[in-house]
Amino acid sequence: MKKNLVFAQSGGPTSVINATCYGIITEAKKHGLKVFASKYGIEGILKDNLIDATEISDRDLNILRYSPSAAFGSCRYKLKDGDFEKICEIFEKYRIGYFLYIGGNDSMDTAHRLSEYVINTGRDIKVIGLPKTIDNDLTNTYCCPGYGSAAKFVATSVREMALDADVYDKEAVTIVEVMGRDSGFLTAASALARDEVVDAPHLIYLPEVPFEEDVFLSDVERVFRKKGKVFITTSEGIKDKSGNYPYLRDGKCDAFGNMQMGGVSRYLEHLVRENITKRVKVIEFSIIQRSAAHIASLVDNQVATMVGKVGVEKILNGTSDVMISIEKTDTGFEAGTVPLAKVANYTKSIPIEWIDQQNRWVTQDAIEYMLPLIQGQVDIPYENGLPKYIRFI
Amino acid sequence: MKKNLVFAQSGGPTSVINATCYGIITEAKKHGLKVFASKYGIEGILKDNLIDATEISDRDLNILRYSPSAAFGSCRYKLKDGDFEKICEIFEKYRIGYFLYIGGNDSMDTAHRLSEYVINTGRDIKVIGLPKTIDNDLTNTYCCPGYGSAAKFVATSVREMALDADVYDKEAVTIVEVMGRDSGFLTAASALARDEVVDAPHLIYLPEVPFEEDVFLSDVERVFRKKGKVFITTSEGIKDKSGNYPYLRDGKCDAFGNMQMGGVSRYLEHLVRENITKRVKVIEFSIIQRSAAHIASLVDNQVATMVGKVGVEKILNGTSDVMISIEKTDTGFEAGTVPLAKVANYTKSIPIEWIDQQNRWVTQDAIEYMLPLIQGQVDIPYENGLPKYIRFI
Repeated sequence: MKKNLVFAQSGGPTSVINATCYGIITEAKKHGLKVFASKYGIEGILKDNLIDATEISDRDLNILRYSPSAAFGSCRYKLKDGDFEKICEIFEKYRIGYFLYIGGNDSMDTAHRLSEYVINTGRDIKVIGLPKTIDNDLTNTYCCPGYGSAAKFVATSVREMALDADVYDKEAVTIVEVMGRDSGFLTAASALARDEVVDAPHLIYLPEVPFEEDVFLSDVERVFRKKGKVFITTSEGIKDKSGNYPYLRDGKCDAFGNMQMGGVSRYLEHLVRENITKRVKVIEFSIIQRSAAHIASLVDNQVATMVGKVGVEKILNGTSDVMISIEKTDTGFEAGTVPLAKVANYTKSIPIEWIDQQNRWVTQDAIEYMLPLIQGQVDIPYENGLPKYIRFI
Repeated sequence: MKKNLVFAQSGGPTSVINATCYGIITEAKKHGLKVFASKYGIEGILKDNLIDATEISDRDLNILRYSPSAAFGSCRYKLKDGDFEKICEIFEKYRIGYFLYIGGNDSMDTAHRLSEYVINTGRDIKVIGLPKTIDNDLTNTYCCPGYGSAAKFVATSVREMALDADVYDKEAVTIVEVMGRDSGFLTAASALARDEVVDAPHLIYLPEVPFEEDVFLSDVERVFRKKGKVFITTSEGIKDKSGNYPYLRDGKCDAFGNMQMGGVSRYLEHLVRENITKRVKVIEFSIIQRSAAHIASLVDNQVATMVGKVGVEKILNGTSDVMISIEKTDTGFEAGTVPLAKVANYTKSIPIEWIDQQNRWVTQDAIEYMLPLIQGQVDIPYENGLPKYIRFI
């Protein structure tokens, strides 16, 4: 009896997870495979909450391809030991022989553990992980789907806001906070905003470089004296030499409300306001940066689609316990595989030699790494003047 | 001797001011007119800081048309009595016979006063105001250039973020803060995000309706009980019955940092966190909403261009002391004129009958008013995967 496939998505949404789902569904349909989508990630399997994705119309599939967020829902649930058997029971109920798990490094660990469990219990279920994260921090892959689109939004918006910030003949400091707790790839993408018209950002703060208050203030002071305007981008995850978030130190930030991630820009604002100028403005991209599908990168969308398609091809060929990786070729991108054990729980940071610590900037190598990932505009369907999106939850 | 034209821009930037400048320059060139642009608004005239805009190449003009912010700079300077004579002296130096002033209601007042001054001092200088504001609050015009593009960004981003906010099977309250101190048009545009897929926003708070804490909390509670998820959009300018900003009251918000505009979403977050759920997220659009030219409305860009073009036509015909207004026709938009005195210092709010106070929503009339303004996508030039922009400051 023919086996079925199920996919699930885990962790934070991106603008192109749904392109991966589109790739999975369309490729699986070619092979006459029945595809189930698990609602709200792996929790949907545990709760027996699956839907038949093969029934989605071609029209809706085309909308799905360009929709942000996770159209079947996601979760941040870490599997417990007892969950694996429960999952296998549901797999049995739906005659699942193939499981594709879209996520970041935690999810790859989950997929790896599940893969080991099915082997140890003598089941013939193939498991493949599909990469996804705006942080771009998975190892053994050139890049991660989701990053290119978030990077394109960050670079575009920084360029636009830099023009706005310069509009008055007055001093101004602008601080933009970008997602990325441990990896600065997304913040680094702000460097792409600079061209012969826009010289912002002037200073980029990455979690890969220990943050020091006095160095920060002297950086800002230097640019401020020279230009009268300073445009700063910072990762939400900058840490001091001890690896602590500087804005959580000694109750220094009582004035900034709740002590959760996202406080860094208010902390830097406070430093600038107290020491340099009161004319300081803060922008937090928050969830806009991972959901702005209207400015998604075409390349990112295509790579995300490819990852889903190749995932189906490989799993049908009997490949298991791997993540689909992305390789850069002379003409574009190709999919490969990497053992899940080599990806699970590891985190990739920006190579330190790509960071120009002196100038709070990134090197040409970093620019050349990022540029191919933001190329091209998606041709999303519009209705009544707005992008038309879809979801199935 | 042929007279020259000068234009200046005032107040906050938008995504389509530069389209108006494009309209002015291209139309003026057709008439063989020399066009000066004043740098940093009217201050550029006072400081003798003009540039010859007729020398801008066709390539750069096409980039200018789609660039956000104010490519020649802006100011927030209120003219003093002594400034008028100084302006006239500079006009004489550059043989200016025509002055176009792009701005909001303050700027229209300035233009009107200047117009009276030149008449009173026996000079033959024509003055026309060109509307511009994302707030859409100028009277005697169907709409204001800049609004449609900001509205399109707000609606698009709210739709995208609403998909993101729903992705987990967990309770969540999302609060989005939109610009607009006295007029709720831009916040109301968030209503356009709702379609048969996205039901957000659930609650819209406008400055036109007095804000009451207890009513707000019972609104949120009601939606929260029903859906488990609440998506709120609020104007930065909501006020209580006495016309005061609720978050500035009685030092209640000491915990929220500086007491400047932009504090409302943190205040609402605090209310929800203390009374309903800790799972609350805040997004402030800040300057992104007025500079996101990559998602500008084509209609808005065309109307802004028309306003510049017609401004030149009218002023060359001897028309003065008027603002170019916009009229809706069956097929699109046309330009008209309205005396500056009828626009200066007046502010338009959302008609109260367009507000559904019961449901914190807007009526179908409001939707039908806004929809035509966000139609169409601009075909902006891209380079290296990013929108290519220009400025001349």
